[in-house]
Amino acid sequence: MAEHNALPLVILAEKFASLPGIGMKSAQRLAYHVMSMNEKDVEDFAQALIDAKKKVRQCSCCQNLTEREVCPICSDEQRDHSVICVVESPKDVTAFERTNEYNGVYHVLHGLLSPMDNVTPDMLRIKELLARIAKGGVEEVIMATNPTVEGDATAMYVANLLKPLGIKVTRLAFGLPVGGILEYADEVTLYRALENRNAM
Amino acid sequence: MAEHNALPLVILAEKFASLPGIGMKSAQRLAYHVMSMNEKDVEDFAQALIDAKKKVRQCSCCQNLTEREVCPICSDEQRDHSVICVVESPKDVTAFERTNEYNGVYHVLHGLLSPMDNVTPDMLRIKELLARIAKGGVEEVIMATNPTVEGDATAMYVANLLKPLGIKVTRLAFGLPVGGILEYADEVTLYRALENRNAM
Repeated sequence: MAEHNALPLVILAEKFASLPGIGMKSAQRLAYHVMSMNEKDVEDFAQALIDAKKKVRQCSCCQNLTEREVCPICSDEQRDHSVICVVESPKDVTAFERTNEYNGVYHVLHGLLSPMDNVTPDMLRIKELLARIAKGGVEEVIMATNPTVEGDATAMYVANLLKPLGIKVTRLAFGLPVGGILEYADEVTLYRALENRNAM
Repeated sequence: MAEHNALPLVILAEKFASLPGIGMKSAQRLAYHVMSMNEKDVEDFAQALIDAKKKVRQCSCCQNLTEREVCPICSDEQRDHSVICVVESPKDVTAFERTNEYNGVYHVLHGLLSPMDNVTPDMLRIKELLARIAKGGVEEVIMATNPTVEGDATAMYVANLLKPLGIKVTRLAFGLPVGGILEYADEVTLYRALENRNAM
């Protein structure tokens, strides 16, 4: 925004533009939108930002984001605590919960191994996973990281740590997405779908 | 976001989703991003929201948004105060300023006439425009509202108010956009380009 614009508006637009996926033009539009909101709504928005940052922390058990000491999933007696689904981020927990099919618990790594980006095992919540398993009662660990180079490498790394402990380690199935069209599937997906074919 | 998510995060995502052009999925992503920002940056963001709303007001002269009583453009002696460019919103001022070609001043209407949306002339900053002109010294008013039904109607309405005052009222030229391809121009644009053709 040019110098003729009000400085607080320029600053706000820059804050919006610093968020992922928001360019400078959208950021300006958002800043103007804030001007049209009533004062109470703007204050609530500002408070929501601060609350999210200050009140939300990582569950002491599964490391998912929560405002409690132990998250609702970890403290739910109805869920199967012998199965842990290991995911990269809290977003992935939301994705699994949306299926309404999974009744086990989770463990959020908060990242994936990536030597290129200097992400080493000690930067992920792997030791917290090992500590949970050391307490006993865990029968299966599902490695549910993304089917990418980093996701596969992380799954492999964690699996190699867990296997000596006698834990069953599984990986999500990869294949054609439901409703997908074979013709448009990429080679690797098609190869994995072929390789993992099931009897009918 | 489902109930397993931390409440402050759900609230923040809803705030982001209430902004124009941000869907629920993007809003969730932004809320997670805020979690990864450091506390100081989040506080600065919250403060920027409040500052923009509290410190920015409308210039007492041109009604553009500014943190001063009179905006930098209106208080700039170097500019030609005898030409007023009338626009719909502060965004349009930014657009004209980017051209670096316009040296007159502006007047921001903060909306366009729209009987469908119950926007009547008294809801726009038209009387402020008339008051400026009543002070004298204005020779030309350029109606620079968008070439839409509402933009044209507003331009026409204001022009009819100003003409009896002996002010020269002009309208932006409409035609092919520079670099545009004739084949892809819509009929109305092409018609206007033909109608307003210039001698070479």
